[in-house]
Amino acid sequence: MKPFHPAPGSVGVVKPQKARFTTPLSLKSGAVLPAFELVFETYGELNASGSNAVLVCHALAGNHHVAGLSADAPQQAGWWDNLVGPGKPLDTNQFFVVGVNNLGGCYGSTGPVSINPETGKPYGADFPLLTVDDWVAAQARLADHLGIDCWAAVIGGSLGGMQALEWTLQFPDRIRHALVIASAPQLSAQNIAFNEVARQAILSDPDFHSGHYYEHGTVPARGLRLARMIGHITYLSNDQMGEKFGRQLKHGARSFSYGADFEIESYLRYQGDKFATSFDANTYLLTTRALDYFDPAHAYGGDLQAALARAKADFFVASFSTDWRFSPGRSREIVYALLHNRRNVSYAEIDCASGHDSFLLDNPHYHAAIAAYLERIEL
Amino acid sequence: MKPFHPAPGSVGVVKPQKARFTTPLSLKSGAVLPAFELVFETYGELNASGSNAVLVCHALAGNHHVAGLSADAPQQAGWWDNLVGPGKPLDTNQFFVVGVNNLGGCYGSTGPVSINPETGKPYGADFPLLTVDDWVAAQARLADHLGIDCWAAVIGGSLGGMQALEWTLQFPDRIRHALVIASAPQLSAQNIAFNEVARQAILSDPDFHSGHYYEHGTVPARGLRLARMIGHITYLSNDQMGEKFGRQLKHGARSFSYGADFEIESYLRYQGDKFATSFDANTYLLTTRALDYFDPAHAYGGDLQAALARAKADFFVASFSTDWRFSPGRSREIVYALLHNRRNVSYAEIDCASGHDSFLLDNPHYHAAIAAYLERIEL
Repeated sequence: MKPFHPAPGSVGVVKPQKARFTTPLSLKSGAVLPAFELVFETYGELNASGSNAVLVCHALAGNHHVAGLSADAPQQAGWWDNLVGPGKPLDTNQFFVVGVNNLGGCYGSTGPVSINPETGKPYGADFPLLTVDDWVAAQARLADHLGIDCWAAVIGGSLGGMQALEWTLQFPDRIRHALVIASAPQLSAQNIAFNEVARQAILSDPDFHSGHYYEHGTVPARGLRLARMIGHITYLSNDQMGEKFGRQLKHGARSFSYGADFEIESYLRYQGDKFATSFDANTYLLTTRALDYFDPAHAYGGDLQAALARAKADFFVASFSTDWRFSPGRSREIVYALLHNRRNVSYAEIDCASGHDSFLLDNPHYHAAIAAYLERIEL
Repeated sequence: MKPFHPAPGSVGVVKPQKARFTTPLSLKSGAVLPAFELVFETYGELNASGSNAVLVCHALAGNHHVAGLSADAPQQAGWWDNLVGPGKPLDTNQFFVVGVNNLGGCYGSTGPVSINPETGKPYGADFPLLTVDDWVAAQARLADHLGIDCWAAVIGGSLGGMQALEWTLQFPDRIRHALVIASAPQLSAQNIAFNEVARQAILSDPDFHSGHYYEHGTVPARGLRLARMIGHITYLSNDQMGEKFGRQLKHGARSFSYGADFEIESYLRYQGDKFATSFDANTYLLTTRALDYFDPAHAYGGDLQAALARAKADFFVASFSTDWRFSPGRSREIVYALLHNRRNVSYAEIDCASGHDSFLLDNPHYHAAIAAYLERIEL
């Protein structure tokens, strides 16, 4: 008889849930949010001891819909559906997996599009700026709500990896494993520069109306579109862009116009247009600012080793060879700081052509490394 | 008695000159320009045999004011003043140096801001799109006007280097030496992507009015500002940006706003604002498009060696270690293609932290290499 292997599959159709929190949340900016809601999804079953819970943190444009098919949009698989499901590397037969839309998001959690109870109008630009610390503090409320004292693991890529790292610092006793993927201990000046240009594109869009565009019935679509186009350049590797698009002329010849002569132009315009109609500009702004501000070493005079000394979790850190947004060197900074603190760290530097976006793809070496790491976790 | 060395110095105050050409110029797009003017400056003296003339070609935001102080703006030194002058690497005691504002430019040569004789209004968006070939064809008219049969050398960095290369292909008998610096044989998909986002910033600016903003009394300053900010990220190296600006907070603490918290934000805003009030958006558009279109190998099925077979000049090619816009690998493509054609090529890969902008700086190794190469030229 062959040993039983559950077929790799989907978690199926998932319904998002909402949790409301009425204890005020003090934010790093000094602002206080009197109450807030988080939208989330769960996959798999929480075991009796509550020891098999895994939190998935999303990146800039992500949300709570991590895996399976959404009840609201059945054609749309979750953004990490290749990783999360029965028999997949993050195996929902083993783990109770939670996806959450961060505070300040635009997919159902309280954010700039929500009604400000003080004014009866959308918060807009009055929504307080947030930090990665604030997101983790809000996620801890969700853990309480779900009866999870300690996460078996918190996992995320890019900005999601920063949240996983922050969990080990803010709640060292509530996380056993942190999986920090394609991330960095802080943005570089160049990273901030790209964020700044994206923000200026939005802030200078006449339809932005200082962030109160909802009341004006407008959307700063031009700005959001440019922001997304800039972002996409940094998500792909130079080599992959060359291989995928090259200098291919769409219509065989130069048009001597500013139309989309080159395939890469079409691609960027398409990505920009799609994003401009599906994402909220205020959320984009505050998320890029949270990225800029993330810097656990700052309070330790720039000493990352000192900053990470209070972490107790075990770590899985992964980076991708062609990622120039958060290069392997940035992940190694985290690895070295953890090793100097005598933490258990597994580090995988994955050879993958797809740049920063690699963390979303199902590269077999990458997925095998995550699967192997997660299999070790005692439940 | 000490040997005489002319003190490195300035060419002094220079007056721009203008030349008008009334023989129609057929452009690569199929359009014909019935007449045009070029504004230029010269430094040094043309010798009797006309054998000491050097043409300096400018890059994206450059112009004819290469060296010395402008009579119109005495505080503004030429953009390559550190290279060009008496006793400098491009020594005006030896050479007759010509700087020219390219056709389609916005510093005095015929371009989108010029009056279209057919309408009596500025050309605006009706100015024909140009290619690097067209620029070189126009520069050849200027050579005729100045009585220069054959340039001792044509030199340029970045887009200027592409013009130097194009000279060797279009007029192989009118150029003895080409100095191709921080350049590339064609843009990569990533290069085109950055140009495309910059163009979209301008094209989508409501003040652009489809390129006819002069008539509307507006300037697409928002778009130009964003375009320049994006450009500046690609001109500096990641390392240099880190060293120069790092994560330095301007006011010591986070403002929890979208103000310029980080030094790099201030820098980009300053550069963007300055450019938006001094450069013409239509010129920016057509110049980036000429960059996209430059591809001498295209007509040879992508075979650069075949494309460069007709060049007769000797070559000096230089690149900079931290230039990620036109990396050393792109210069090496040119070098290999020339060597396979048995051309004389000197190649210098300069170790310099300043990224693409290095070609404008007075790095001593770089300047020594240019000086040594130019000293070899027989006059």
